[in-house]
Amino acid sequence: MEFRELLIGLIVILLAAKIGGELMERLGQTAVLGELLAGVVIGPGVLGLVRETKVLHAFAELGLIILLFEVGLESDLAKLLKAGPQALLVAMVGVVVPFATGFGLMHALGYSGLVAVFVGATLTATSVGVTARVLADLGRLQDAAASVVLGAAVIDDILGLITLAIVTGIATTGAVSPGAIVLLAAKSAIFLAVAVLIALRRAPGLVGLIGRLQARGALVVSALVFALALALAAEWIGLAAIIGAFAGGMILSRTEPQAQIEERIKPVADILVPIFFVLVGMKVEPAQLNPFADGAQLWVALALTVVAVVSKLVAGLAVYHPGTRRWPVGVGMVPRGEVGLIFAGTGLAAAVVSPDLYSALVVMVMITTFVAPAWMKVLYRPGVELESI
Amino acid sequence: MEFRELLIGLIVILLAAKIGGELMERLGQTAVLGELLAGVVIGPGVLGLVRETKVLHAFAELGLIILLFEVGLESDLAKLLKAGPQALLVAMVGVVVPFATGFGLMHALGYSGLVAVFVGATLTATSVGVTARVLADLGRLQDAAASVVLGAAVIDDILGLITLAIVTGIATTGAVSPGAIVLLAAKSAIFLAVAVLIALRRAPGLVGLIGRLQARGALVVSALVFALALALAAEWIGLAAIIGAFAGGMILSRTEPQAQIEERIKPVADILVPIFFVLVGMKVEPAQLNPFADGAQLWVALALTVVAVVSKLVAGLAVYHPGTRRWPVGVGMVPRGEVGLIFAGTGLAAAVVSPDLYSALVVMVMITTFVAPAWMKVLYRPGVELESI
Repeated sequence: MEFRELLIGLIVILLAAKIGGELMERLGQTAVLGELLAGVVIGPGVLGLVRETKVLHAFAELGLIILLFEVGLESDLAKLLKAGPQALLVAMVGVVVPFATGFGLMHALGYSGLVAVFVGATLTATSVGVTARVLADLGRLQDAAASVVLGAAVIDDILGLITLAIVTGIATTGAVSPGAIVLLAAKSAIFLAVAVLIALRRAPGLVGLIGRLQARGALVVSALVFALALALAAEWIGLAAIIGAFAGGMILSRTEPQAQIEERIKPVADILVPIFFVLVGMKVEPAQLNPFADGAQLWVALALTVVAVVSKLVAGLAVYHPGTRRWPVGVGMVPRGEVGLIFAGTGLAAAVVSPDLYSALVVMVMITTFVAPAWMKVLYRPGVELESI
Repeated sequence: MEFRELLIGLIVILLAAKIGGELMERLGQTAVLGELLAGVVIGPGVLGLVRETKVLHAFAELGLIILLFEVGLESDLAKLLKAGPQALLVAMVGVVVPFATGFGLMHALGYSGLVAVFVGATLTATSVGVTARVLADLGRLQDAAASVVLGAAVIDDILGLITLAIVTGIATTGAVSPGAIVLLAAKSAIFLAVAVLIALRRAPGLVGLIGRLQARGALVVSALVFALALALAAEWIGLAAIIGAFAGGMILSRTEPQAQIEERIKPVADILVPIFFVLVGMKVEPAQLNPFADGAQLWVALALTVVAVVSKLVAGLAVYHPGTRRWPVGVGMVPRGEVGLIFAGTGLAAAVVSPDLYSALVVMVMITTFVAPAWMKVLYRPGVELESI
């Protein structure tokens, strides 16, 4: 019975993802937008064909890990390192400005300081998943702006974790533990530094062993185990699993069978990654978007959305290298995606954010997530040249 | 936390499967034997590194479905149909003889009629999963004997469902419903007939549409959805999901992009299929195999095992075509695998089979499952020619 539900769920999700992706591609949009919309349509808000079970949730989480692994695999470490200082600046501006403006807006609207802190924190999120997927759909992972956005999104994910630790600390104990925050920041920096070092020095040796294996499927399984092990390591030291998966891909991108790994992991990604985006879409309840339901809430949602978009565009202005375009960087930081939902959900769970305000935050998350892929598509329309640093 | 457990579980299972498979291949055995043994080692009976969760169980079930889909995809429908009458005869002998001898043995040992019926039913099982995987590992899916074994194993799976319906009926209501059994048999026959008809007539048209899709991964996702849909259809009408997956593969084997589908589905199978076999191995508790624990039970287990092996070898004698070898057919029917465990488990759940007898049945299932791959490897040692019907 349970297995039947899983079969139905997978069939509906994969079919909807492919139909949505295909339609959007024919309309000149990216496939990921179609998958997000497909999730809205089959989700509990509209047709209610599928509900998110534990197993489907696990598939989606693995999908996100494989996506980041794949993006790491396709990325160019030399370019990422070159883009590093710029990416760090963009990430910092992309955290400070959304937080400050979000806090200011809520304060101006008369909300308490604690609520304003939580909303500001939610606005700092960047969905590295959505951004990476859009760049992959557009075939622009090698672009100079892409290196900056990806680097900034990864750093943003780490800054987001730190921000979440701070605001949760304020909400629960009323205080911030500076030691814990310094520790988290230090662990993150060390983790990434070690990954980069391994990528530069030890990657070829790692793969020699795999090449000597005879059993069928040794390469794809080894690569996957490597990605999962790094995701686990990241998760273990308190980072997000996807950071580890990205680092794992980055390390293997420096190895000789990189192209083979990419080719073998692709079909696995083709199946699992859309499940993640459909499940993100399934979290939208269009009833919440109805302007006649509650006028005040709608205006809060729209104000939050404007602040969310503009404040991340400002981050794009932090690009100082003349050869890199600012707009793709700014727009690439706009989608809040699953990260924004986690922030808002934490606020709701801590009873800091009211259900009404939570709905407004979800509207903001969804609009930013749905607008960014279409916007990126315009910025990278055919004929726009690839840039290099 | 739960996600961390999943990551650890997947890493341990996949690593153990590859190490076990690699070791066995170097010892001249099939990889599947190594995966089964790896499961025993990491399972609760020995190291206890992993426990079977809902999510891992779902992965394993999907793995079995993809394995049967892959086998259907690689099989030759013309050969299967040609081997059909022989396969039917082998399957029938392979159900009647094990049932009769198992019943006789238990009766002679003084067990009640109902227990003897259940044990006889358990002996009729054939693990199409293990047999198919061994043939695939050996690269012998195109062999004449392979067509007979595969056909017989699939028919056996259907006969097994009918047998299970009968004995469960006897155990619970004390009576058999002839109507229900005729219905199940008719549904099975119609399902397979329709699948064969579609394969012969409509398969090329099915794929024309897929070819026109633009989105990335359209082929692998379409193929998987097709396999899942047929598995669901089979399950819906009361058959095993794997029969549907096999039929789905058989249909697509007649289409033009068959080779491409095979290539794309392989990495997915490489990851999911070993999970199934490791989880089968994890169900073994070596403590049950200890001869000093309970002498009487050990002798029952050994007697059951001898009857189980010999009675299925007899089925191989039903091969009447002079060009097809009898031994590979008989040995191919020996492994009881997950099907035998389901039968024994049903008997235990119905309180017909005592825990002691259940352990003896598990020993029989495991020995037949572990012996068959090694035996098949000997029968198909290098130099043995491929046969054709």
